[in-house]
Amino acid sequence: MSIIIKGIRLNGKTSDIFIEGNRIKEIDDQLDVKADEVIPGEGKAAVPSFVNGHTHAAMTLLRGYADDMPLQEWLQTKIWPIEAHMTEEDIYWGAKLACLEMIKTGTTFFNDMYWHWRGTARAVEEMGIRAAISAVFIDLFDAQKAKEQIALNEQLYAERDAFGPRVTFTLGPHAIYTVSEAALRWCAEFARDKGVLVHFHLAETEEEIQECLKKHGVRPVKYLEQIGFLGPHLVACHCVWLDEEDIAILKAHEVRAVHNPTSNMKLTVGGVFPYPQLREGGIITALGTDGCASNNNLDMLETAKLASLLQKFHTGDPVIMPAHEALDLITLQGARAFGLESGVLKAGHWADIALVDLNNSQLTPHFHLASDLIYAANGSCIDTLICDGRILLRGGHVEGEEEIIAKAREKAFDLVKRSAG
Amino acid sequence: MSIIIKGIRLNGKTSDIFIEGNRIKEIDDQLDVKADEVIPGEGKAAVPSFVNGHTHAAMTLLRGYADDMPLQEWLQTKIWPIEAHMTEEDIYWGAKLACLEMIKTGTTFFNDMYWHWRGTARAVEEMGIRAAISAVFIDLFDAQKAKEQIALNEQLYAERDAFGPRVTFTLGPHAIYTVSEAALRWCAEFARDKGVLVHFHLAETEEEIQECLKKHGVRPVKYLEQIGFLGPHLVACHCVWLDEEDIAILKAHEVRAVHNPTSNMKLTVGGVFPYPQLREGGIITALGTDGCASNNNLDMLETAKLASLLQKFHTGDPVIMPAHEALDLITLQGARAFGLESGVLKAGHWADIALVDLNNSQLTPHFHLASDLIYAANGSCIDTLICDGRILLRGGHVEGEEEIIAKAREKAFDLVKRSAG
Repeated sequence: MSIIIKGIRLNGKTSDIFIEGNRIKEIDDQLDVKADEVIPGEGKAAVPSFVNGHTHAAMTLLRGYADDMPLQEWLQTKIWPIEAHMTEEDIYWGAKLACLEMIKTGTTFFNDMYWHWRGTARAVEEMGIRAAISAVFIDLFDAQKAKEQIALNEQLYAERDAFGPRVTFTLGPHAIYTVSEAALRWCAEFARDKGVLVHFHLAETEEEIQECLKKHGVRPVKYLEQIGFLGPHLVACHCVWLDEEDIAILKAHEVRAVHNPTSNMKLTVGGVFPYPQLREGGIITALGTDGCASNNNLDMLETAKLASLLQKFHTGDPVIMPAHEALDLITLQGARAFGLESGVLKAGHWADIALVDLNNSQLTPHFHLASDLIYAANGSCIDTLICDGRILLRGGHVEGEEEIIAKAREKAFDLVKRSAG
Repeated sequence: MSIIIKGIRLNGKTSDIFIEGNRIKEIDDQLDVKADEVIPGEGKAAVPSFVNGHTHAAMTLLRGYADDMPLQEWLQTKIWPIEAHMTEEDIYWGAKLACLEMIKTGTTFFNDMYWHWRGTARAVEEMGIRAAISAVFIDLFDAQKAKEQIALNEQLYAERDAFGPRVTFTLGPHAIYTVSEAALRWCAEFARDKGVLVHFHLAETEEEIQECLKKHGVRPVKYLEQIGFLGPHLVACHCVWLDEEDIAILKAHEVRAVHNPTSNMKLTVGGVFPYPQLREGGIITALGTDGCASNNNLDMLETAKLASLLQKFHTGDPVIMPAHEALDLITLQGARAFGLESGVLKAGHWADIALVDLNNSQLTPHFHLASDLIYAANGSCIDTLICDGRILLRGGHVEGEEEIIAKAREKAFDLVKRSAG
């Protein structure tokens, strides 16, 4: 299968992009090649498709179910009771809905942590995008639970190739307050041994810091360093409550960080991702949406806008995280964080490409693409999405989207009914 | 002209909405009436269309032209030199583009302050929405300039009916640091005398407060009270730097306040609109986008999300400005702020109605409409927009939108060229 995108805006010029198989074969002003499919690029711009660095995809099922509640009450009376009733089939439909929303808003890769790993993996494989998927690993400091979780992860790791190369297995130890030291040590060893990433919630709330100080006498980052948990395999999500020493330690261990501005603001975590310091430290940073119960969408352009606005507001510096840098965070930096052969459109890279409709009132007059995408537009400006050399979105439409919406809605309401009875 | 919307979701029920002329005639479970046009409501929800409490519509022409610069450099080297070259024709096309974007994102009323009043008025009249329009009144403490501005405003007031009832004339004294005391006094008197609103920037930055203290020995609100500027005619935009006494004074004079969260964050004004205190004080509050050079869009659903997130983040209270309240701010409260006969869908009100497409991945599963609209969706979920009993948007499309986009783009690039010499 080959595709040629003719006469598209790319980095300020008009170019042709030739795709062969799942990779970009050539980009030039004008290419004289034959392809199975021709996409006219007029009135469109090509950008690398987006990377969502942290989510719980199937939480789409709980979108809007219980907002505007205090955090603990929300978790204990709403989220956890429902999650306890989720089946793999629920997760599958929730993840399909998530993939649909991501495709429609330009995202081709997400980093996931949730229940029923196989349900999410099946959805991702079918929908045609990419994901690094982890099973939530929580043992609540119970050795028996830890044993079960380890067995499950070993089994999922053994099965990981069943879902094809777009699905990557990762480990998902939840956080220091839900996972025992022994299990965290096991995760780090397994990650080093097998070369898999570890997806983790780190320093999200002040409470986490205070509890860790009380329990271990040190802050979370130091504690994790002491038990050998840190390394380039670690994708640390949130990273809101970090001090200078924490940042130096994360840097020394080449940990990757994911900032989730919308979730942090909505859940009132009380601090802000120290972006200037992490950037200064050269720490690879991506942006994430978090799950749909705490955002409530999966739109990476909105997330990038929020990230930039929050940094400006918090630092008082109107030029911090300029538009091109915010766009970079959801493309190139995101790709670096997860080792993806994408993030910049060039020959040899995966054909993971979003085409932006420039005949959009929010992208008019159109002086600077990055400014327009980050500050003015949202994910609805994406017209076409290509992942792994396959066209997943055409004219803003995904084949079969109506069925996914109807089925996910049915599953969500059924889930609420089941969990109530 | 009559319209019936059949079987639409409204306040959690399925209803029919009958529109006759420019008003809602009747709403009931099932209406057996004949109408010139039938809109099938299946898969859609009806909400009052949105109110944008503060913008400079034609600044769409400068969208993305110069972002990520320090404020003063941005104004002096980019915005002001270009604005000096704007003609009424530029303004007309910029405002047409703004109206187009607002129609596509569910807004039927905006409160505007900009140059070349007639250009904006003409655009609003043609596009079919409503606006309260003021000419920017800046005299820079020069009596001759003040005289010219007063003459212009008297003339515009005399001509105000030329543009039909959807266009309202208001006064637009810019701010205390750009308008003389004599001119501010004239504005307040004229407003009281003629019953028109006054659109004003108030307490946007700390610098404004400090300068006022130095010049007048009191804070801006107190100064404005002393010169008789305050009253229910005043729409005070931004209101970021207010103390308790300021709020009490604004309340005593029944001033209306407009919060512009995105602009405040992007321009790093350094403070936050004191929403809990203003709400407690019973001060009528609306939300606004500000102009497209400092936002960079006119999407009121995005603005409402930002407002809610910023309040949560700033106060540390996760239940402040819940979704239904944020939605209220851009509908009912907005209508109250500007004396509109809309903001809630009921018989006798203007037929200003937005229909939301519920078959949208971001509105799935759809447990709570307000949560979905504010936290998950953006303006692109609006399928149909009715203003004054006329259908302006159908299936997300506005008749002639391609021409407006092309023409506004052409005008913007031409303006940049002209202003460069």
